[in-house]
Amino acid sequence: MKLICDGLDLSDAVLKVSKALSVKSVNPVLEGIKISAFGDTLTLLATDSELTIEKKIRADVLMEGEVVVVGKYFVEFVKKLEKEQVELCKLDDGPLQLKYSNSESELQVFNVEDFPKINKDFNGEFFELTQKEFKKLVNEVSFACSLDNARPMLKGCLFNVEEGILTCVALDGFRMSVVKKEITSSGNFKVIIPARTLQEITRLLDKDEDIVKVILQNNMLFIEVENTTLISRLIEGEFVKYNHILPQSFTNQVIVNKQVLLNSIERASIVAKNDSYNIIKFDIKEDFMNIIAKSEIGNVNESVNINLNGKDLTIAFNGKYLLDFLKVIDAEFIKLHLNSPIDPCVIKPVGNEGFLYLLLPVRING
Amino acid sequence: MKLICDGLDLSDAVLKVSKALSVKSVNPVLEGIKISAFGDTLTLLATDSELTIEKKIRADVLMEGEVVVVGKYFVEFVKKLEKEQVELCKLDDGPLQLKYSNSESELQVFNVEDFPKINKDFNGEFFELTQKEFKKLVNEVSFACSLDNARPMLKGCLFNVEEGILTCVALDGFRMSVVKKEITSSGNFKVIIPARTLQEITRLLDKDEDIVKVILQNNMLFIEVENTTLISRLIEGEFVKYNHILPQSFTNQVIVNKQVLLNSIERASIVAKNDSYNIIKFDIKEDFMNIIAKSEIGNVNESVNINLNGKDLTIAFNGKYLLDFLKVIDAEFIKLHLNSPIDPCVIKPVGNEGFLYLLLPVRING
Repeated sequence: MKLICDGLDLSDAVLKVSKALSVKSVNPVLEGIKISAFGDTLTLLATDSELTIEKKIRADVLMEGEVVVVGKYFVEFVKKLEKEQVELCKLDDGPLQLKYSNSESELQVFNVEDFPKINKDFNGEFFELTQKEFKKLVNEVSFACSLDNARPMLKGCLFNVEEGILTCVALDGFRMSVVKKEITSSGNFKVIIPARTLQEITRLLDKDEDIVKVILQNNMLFIEVENTTLISRLIEGEFVKYNHILPQSFTNQVIVNKQVLLNSIERASIVAKNDSYNIIKFDIKEDFMNIIAKSEIGNVNESVNINLNGKDLTIAFNGKYLLDFLKVIDAEFIKLHLNSPIDPCVIKPVGNEGFLYLLLPVRING
Repeated sequence: MKLICDGLDLSDAVLKVSKALSVKSVNPVLEGIKISAFGDTLTLLATDSELTIEKKIRADVLMEGEVVVVGKYFVEFVKKLEKEQVELCKLDDGPLQLKYSNSESELQVFNVEDFPKINKDFNGEFFELTQKEFKKLVNEVSFACSLDNARPMLKGCLFNVEEGILTCVALDGFRMSVVKKEITSSGNFKVIIPARTLQEITRLLDKDEDIVKVILQNNMLFIEVENTTLISRLIEGEFVKYNHILPQSFTNQVIVNKQVLLNSIERASIVAKNDSYNIIKFDIKEDFMNIIAKSEIGNVNESVNINLNGKDLTIAFNGKYLLDFLKVIDAEFIKLHLNSPIDPCVIKPVGNEGFLYLLLPVRING
């Protein structure tokens, strides 16, 4: 293999695919980036066997071929190249040679035959939305995914498409985020996409108005953005029946300014987080709500104006779970829907009926 | 104690003094910030017994008094206050009360009597330079200080003033940085200032053209910048006789472009740092220098144009020590002064005779 390409193009491409590099894999070749030169194209590909990212750039290919280079060092090296022409060359059993300016360096390679074959021929169900909508969706839902390896199903988000409506759900046993929106799709289907895959897809999106087409086939997800392809395994199995968790009616509704509530809970958390449950108590009265936290370091008692429809109520939550939600929503006011101190609370941004957040309260005495 | 002050002023002041807070001290009161309200001034003070920072802000003092609050939580809390008026109040044996908007919070306090007394009456030797000069000096010297607690002397920089010339020296046993510059001073003296103190002083400097006056008395350093006072212990003892280390003459001089050399060493380091000594070999010829690094991950061989006065020479250095220096100097070209592969190398920025860097080579075979 022998080719000449632009150093900046190469650096950008290597950085993109490196997100799929395996770290300390039992199979060391997965720590490699596969470089292929055919026609007038240089293709870089990394995979950790769950997630695969491939990026194509233009190159002058003098001799076609393939090589797998140690990803970590190649990334570092290419990042430090100045923006000049780089020649990549691999002859017989030798290392990968990099030539630039008057200099020449070599990096060790893996055996190309050991690198897994990736199927890139996808043609199944799909859904489409703009990059901006996709990023907003992931932002509003994925934070509620579990990080617990013991329940792999909850490390992903459910994407359920039915009659042109996408319902996206993430939950971790303490709280749940649900977004509904109209989309274009090939039909009805249900898949669970790993939260990490969703995060990596959003990193590739930098043209808000462009359309993202997500293709799903045989438990794999496939997406192409400009010259970058991302392929990911889906999570197999049946997702939690999230509809069963949602209360059907509420006795109390509270409307409150989001930013005021967020600031107040942040202050209360400083005191509350000294306690492992980060418990913050909400004493809801007719025109205001007291936000109360107490621990050995001190106590916070703040008064926030509200609009209450219902009766007085005292309820407590883990402050972190409230902050997670308040930080991702884009609304001036939010509405809390409550029943009792032990029933789940549902929060919706006012003016955005497609988004709901369910949160279990923490039981407190008195 | 009872006072009202501006939330933003308070937040800024608390952040400044918090740099001197002790972390996990055997004496917990050193994790506290002392708040004093007298006249129309609120004074905040933190000390870890080595370094003390005090900051004064304007306040409406309704009742004079003092309190010591847990620093960490006070910092976090005050940072989250909106930019409104804050009332601080401490009555008898109670906690510190903070009142803002319609809210009221309390933070636990330490006993004021347990807080160390700090002498703030300084009147000794001094030297002066502009904030810009001071920051440049610290930047050029302090990186060469040792981090090793076993040799506390080397964790500081020597400030030696003689006949209006300040010589500032830091060394760690492998390399040494020396800066000489004319300054205004009260006389001749020699002190060793901890690197951490120098770093904290530079953080307080944000008016390049203003004069910094450093006062030295009884093994203490005292500096006042606007309404902030910093007091630090000096390091006691006799500094290494650095003049003895400097070679008197050199057989070889090499002039090279700083940025080109820096980029080249950065690439070589990717390969070299796989080895614990980070060894980079310099093969110096008449018009160019080869920069060579080798390890199991690959090898780098770069050619850099130079201007040599002397004979061909091969010498090796720890790449990290070269990068540390190349990253802080502000010069287009540097000049390396060499004798043999086992003698120290002295590097100077071309056009800045007041700055030199001495570096011990690494012995290599062949």
